[in-house]
Amino acid sequence: MELKKQVDVCVVGAGHAGCEAALACARLGLQTVIFTVSVDSIALMPCNPNVGGSSKGHLVRELDALGGEMGKNIDKTFIQSKMLNVSKGPAVHSLRAQADKAEYSRAMRKVLENQDNLLIKQAEVCELLWEETEDHKKKITGVKTFTGAIYECKAVVLCTGTYLRARCLCGESITYTGPNGLQAANHLTDSLKAMGIEMRRFKTGTPARMDKRSLDFSKMEEQFGDEKVVPFSFSTDPESVQKEQASCWLTYTNKNTHEIIRNNLDRSPIYAGIIEGTGPRYCPSIEDKVVKFAEKERHQVFIEPEGLHTNEMYVGGMSSSLPEDVQLAMYRTVPGLEHCEIVRNAYAIEYDCINAKQLNPSLEFKNIIGLFSGGQFNGSSGYEEAASQGLIAGINAAMSILHRDPLILDRSESYIGVLIDDLVTKDNREPYRMMTSRAEYRLLLRQDNADLRLRKKGYEIGLISQQEYDALIEKEELIDQEIQRLKNTSVGANKEIQHFLEECGSSTLKTAATLAELICRPELGYAALAPIDKERKPLPPAVVEQVEIEIKYEGYIIRQKRQVEQYRKMEKKLIPDNLNYDEVPSLRLEARQKLKEFRPISVGQASRISGVSPADISVLLVYLEHYNVKNHS
Amino acid sequence: MELKKQVDVCVVGAGHAGCEAALACARLGLQTVIFTVSVDSIALMPCNPNVGGSSKGHLVRELDALGGEMGKNIDKTFIQSKMLNVSKGPAVHSLRAQADKAEYSRAMRKVLENQDNLLIKQAEVCELLWEETEDHKKKITGVKTFTGAIYECKAVVLCTGTYLRARCLCGESITYTGPNGLQAANHLTDSLKAMGIEMRRFKTGTPARMDKRSLDFSKMEEQFGDEKVVPFSFSTDPESVQKEQASCWLTYTNKNTHEIIRNNLDRSPIYAGIIEGTGPRYCPSIEDKVVKFAEKERHQVFIEPEGLHTNEMYVGGMSSSLPEDVQLAMYRTVPGLEHCEIVRNAYAIEYDCINAKQLNPSLEFKNIIGLFSGGQFNGSSGYEEAASQGLIAGINAAMSILHRDPLILDRSESYIGVLIDDLVTKDNREPYRMMTSRAEYRLLLRQDNADLRLRKKGYEIGLISQQEYDALIEKEELIDQEIQRLKNTSVGANKEIQHFLEECGSSTLKTAATLAELICRPELGYAALAPIDKERKPLPPAVVEQVEIEIKYEGYIIRQKRQVEQYRKMEKKLIPDNLNYDEVPSLRLEARQKLKEFRPISVGQASRISGVSPADISVLLVYLEHYNVKNHS
Repeated sequence: MELKKQVDVCVVGAGHAGCEAALACARLGLQTVIFTVSVDSIALMPCNPNVGGSSKGHLVRELDALGGEMGKNIDKTFIQSKMLNVSKGPAVHSLRAQADKAEYSRAMRKVLENQDNLLIKQAEVCELLWEETEDHKKKITGVKTFTGAIYECKAVVLCTGTYLRARCLCGESITYTGPNGLQAANHLTDSLKAMGIEMRRFKTGTPARMDKRSLDFSKMEEQFGDEKVVPFSFSTDPESVQKEQASCWLTYTNKNTHEIIRNNLDRSPIYAGIIEGTGPRYCPSIEDKVVKFAEKERHQVFIEPEGLHTNEMYVGGMSSSLPEDVQLAMYRTVPGLEHCEIVRNAYAIEYDCINAKQLNPSLEFKNIIGLFSGGQFNGSSGYEEAASQGLIAGINAAMSILHRDPLILDRSESYIGVLIDDLVTKDNREPYRMMTSRAEYRLLLRQDNADLRLRKKGYEIGLISQQEYDALIEKEELIDQEIQRLKNTSVGANKEIQHFLEECGSSTLKTAATLAELICRPELGYAALAPIDKERKPLPPAVVEQVEIEIKYEGYIIRQKRQVEQYRKMEKKLIPDNLNYDEVPSLRLEARQKLKEFRPISVGQASRISGVSPADISVLLVYLEHYNVKNHS
Repeated sequence: MELKKQVDVCVVGAGHAGCEAALACARLGLQTVIFTVSVDSIALMPCNPNVGGSSKGHLVRELDALGGEMGKNIDKTFIQSKMLNVSKGPAVHSLRAQADKAEYSRAMRKVLENQDNLLIKQAEVCELLWEETEDHKKKITGVKTFTGAIYECKAVVLCTGTYLRARCLCGESITYTGPNGLQAANHLTDSLKAMGIEMRRFKTGTPARMDKRSLDFSKMEEQFGDEKVVPFSFSTDPESVQKEQASCWLTYTNKNTHEIIRNNLDRSPIYAGIIEGTGPRYCPSIEDKVVKFAEKERHQVFIEPEGLHTNEMYVGGMSSSLPEDVQLAMYRTVPGLEHCEIVRNAYAIEYDCINAKQLNPSLEFKNIIGLFSGGQFNGSSGYEEAASQGLIAGINAAMSILHRDPLILDRSESYIGVLIDDLVTKDNREPYRMMTSRAEYRLLLRQDNADLRLRKKGYEIGLISQQEYDALIEKEELIDQEIQRLKNTSVGANKEIQHFLEECGSSTLKTAATLAELICRPELGYAALAPIDKERKPLPPAVVEQVEIEIKYEGYIIRQKRQVEQYRKMEKKLIPDNLNYDEVPSLRLEARQKLKEFRPISVGQASRISGVSPADISVLLVYLEHYNVKNHS
């Protein structure tokens, strides 16, 4: 007897990417199975106990706008929430919430368990099954598990995270497991290689977890949550997230810490050459920080609760793969940690992943029909990066089965677009982390307007409900009406107004001005104008926020929108799938090689490939014009 | 640098045995570290989602009476509770509660995390450290973890459960992990063997977990909890456990099920000879049942929720190590499971454990000072068996460090005594499971009187608080007073009484009788006599229960107490530690060998060793009398 089951989609891995992928497919009506080595590890947070933060908060908002689950799930299970960078411009405001890890995992599992069309299966997927198409491409036909069961399907989404041939390193000690002593997945890599997929080996790390009772919080700075919490999800009732919050704590490393690290670098598996994988530049271990920023006298250390019901505390900023004895000595130099007891040691984890240039922007493999992937498997790091890719990979697996157009977000409409474009276009040699500086159009890609940017797409795909969409339409109308009203409402240079402006420390009017013009003054704002704005009606805070930003930053926004138009022109110049770069005359050799390797879908994407110069792009544009004329005549 | 830490006790493993051992030591004031391969797996229930049941309920009550945690923890986290066998005599009444597995684990972890003197450490213990004493015994000095850290200590309690060189089998598929894909502990066995410890290999198994949504409950019999729930712990307020309860479901296997199993026995790793370990006779897999009870036309199948917040359902009674395809086919023959979807496959797990005859009844190794062990490592099966041993091992590790007498419970005072005596005296060749039939004095060893039997001992050890002890004393007094009152209160053969007895269907009185005498009548009881017992004062239900049992079963109880006296005489005849059995004349060769091998501590224990006959015991008694005379003269 052979166990054979027919489904539509198989999702491999139930971390943050896998959960989103599976939910998207199931919600779009496809019979979906999600595989995990342990049901108890669904939506596990094996590293930091938080969601969001700089640029990552943007990803979660965008994911939510499209119909993903992460935002809703953290809204249910957060224990502290903070809008970061509020003293800076709105482009870099970022929401970050501390999670109760166990609750987060449990809540997500509950959502999965109750999703129609979705089955959870505890099994290790060991092999992908495929056939050759008439035009000699590979086409996914199913997966095989360790116990020999076959799941025939139309698409597979690989979200293996850090589990593929994982090994954990703590100094000289190596354990062949995934995070938290969970079974690694040791078989799938061979199957992927046999299909011609190019594998990479990356590593990442996590700090120690400490017993709260052994810490002296009087030596640290207490970090509170926001008084008025803003939810992540556009569908969450803002009232439901107002609750008592837990505190985090800030402390610092010092010269002693750094000296202990330097004196023991020879025992670090990275510096000793034991680690093969490449680590994330922008999420470095404490030993990396001490080596690379030797001039810095101290580094921040955030002590964060792992949950409400546990005494385990996360030591943010001090991930390490140094041996246990060095870890303890190093941590104990930090104020407040002098007597710390380590419950779980810090460790580095190495895992197999891919070079994502093998993917289309839809996150489907270029040469394998029906094979999609997301998350750390694609060479990223971070829960939010994983979830975002998982959602897009899941959506596009569904779109391909439903014979609909793939969802490809470009760099001008979302951080998710930037993330995926960077992953599939650049030759990332280390785990990729999202950052606001990676986004060219970040004044447009704010976390506050993710719904205005993307919710319609989520609705068209089928992941946003009519009710959610109607709420968006209403919000858009309110914003438009209010902006028009403010632009059309003038106030004269009369006594009352002049007095009001003087009171606000603003210069008086020479002639009449619109309310919109007054809002633009740095010292004024929407709220400040209430006393002189007699016709104002009460509006939801989210509407007011958009109105104010749109008016205050109008000039910058218009300028950036013009840049976007230029950008889009290039993105719309599609490169035919079968273009023979050898026939493009005058291309430099390096550019020709890179273009053949990456096979960009548009001139825009081609222009971002490193090794392809503006001159090469001009050559390509000329060729494409001739090509198109030829092929359409 | 070497990481070295001084503590009093190291507990290896944080399952049900390890948790009790660690809590006992820490509560007795000893610096204790509990090691686990994953903090997330503390108090994991890798098999059935319940605590208690026939004879196991007794163990939990006794454990609670002594100051253990299991009873309190299940009282906090149960989702259904039932007193079993209430239609039978009080000796076999047994409490069983369905647990919310995730909550059970979390609640216990919380208790551990907040226990003074106790540290939790996620680390694999790989080596025991020891020295040789002057009299050439081994003495524990510490443990070494996989990362090289050394914990110097005075005692070690081994509670490794099913993790030592574990492997999981599902048909032809073998995974080298502990339960639920958790890392196995592959190093410690070698260290134990090097110390001369004799290892065994046992196996146990677990059924599949199914998606609730795929089951048809209309084809099963619903099983409700008790209307009035009785808590496990004598310290739990009975009011706090009255709550809404979840349902379980009963269904049955049938001929089709059995046929599928029989047709595929060659693919079972047990029948195919792949499994080396020996399984539990009294907790057999469904394939074992079908083979061994070939005449049975059906077997019970209990469908039980794994928790309130999950759709996973446990399939009680159908553990298996058959291949996945056979499992699915077999389960789908069962009414209500026709369309079942398996979330986790059934599997068997093999692990290293010991021959417990190497232990003293204190659960200390006979030849290794300071080394204690409990739970499945000792060759038992079951959460309750594990917890009971863990508590005793922990207490005795503490007693030994504190230079106090060990706690050794005998067969006449507790099921725990029976359990441990059986383990260390009999050559158990399969996982040992507790059963009421194993207890000779089970009318005395009821679950209802565990506090009366053992709470004083818990108090003297230091694990029962003054308040808890005072409550016991008060209860004892109330029982005594009420029994005396009932024995001393006569009712005459007057009209009112005769009328009352007639109404109750009981024969009328010829002369006056005491209320106690009336209670003894099968058709009457304490509650029934209320109308004619004018001086009765309201008493707590637990007191009334004891009063009634003591009166109704007085004759049997007295008889059994006399048997206990006989038994105790033999238990009190201690055999000197250094007795040379070669010098005992007339012992049969087999008996001499067995006695040398087991080295029983008393004649009583010697008499229970298989291969030692009553004649051998007589010979031994004669020899000991001479020996004692000689050594005391």
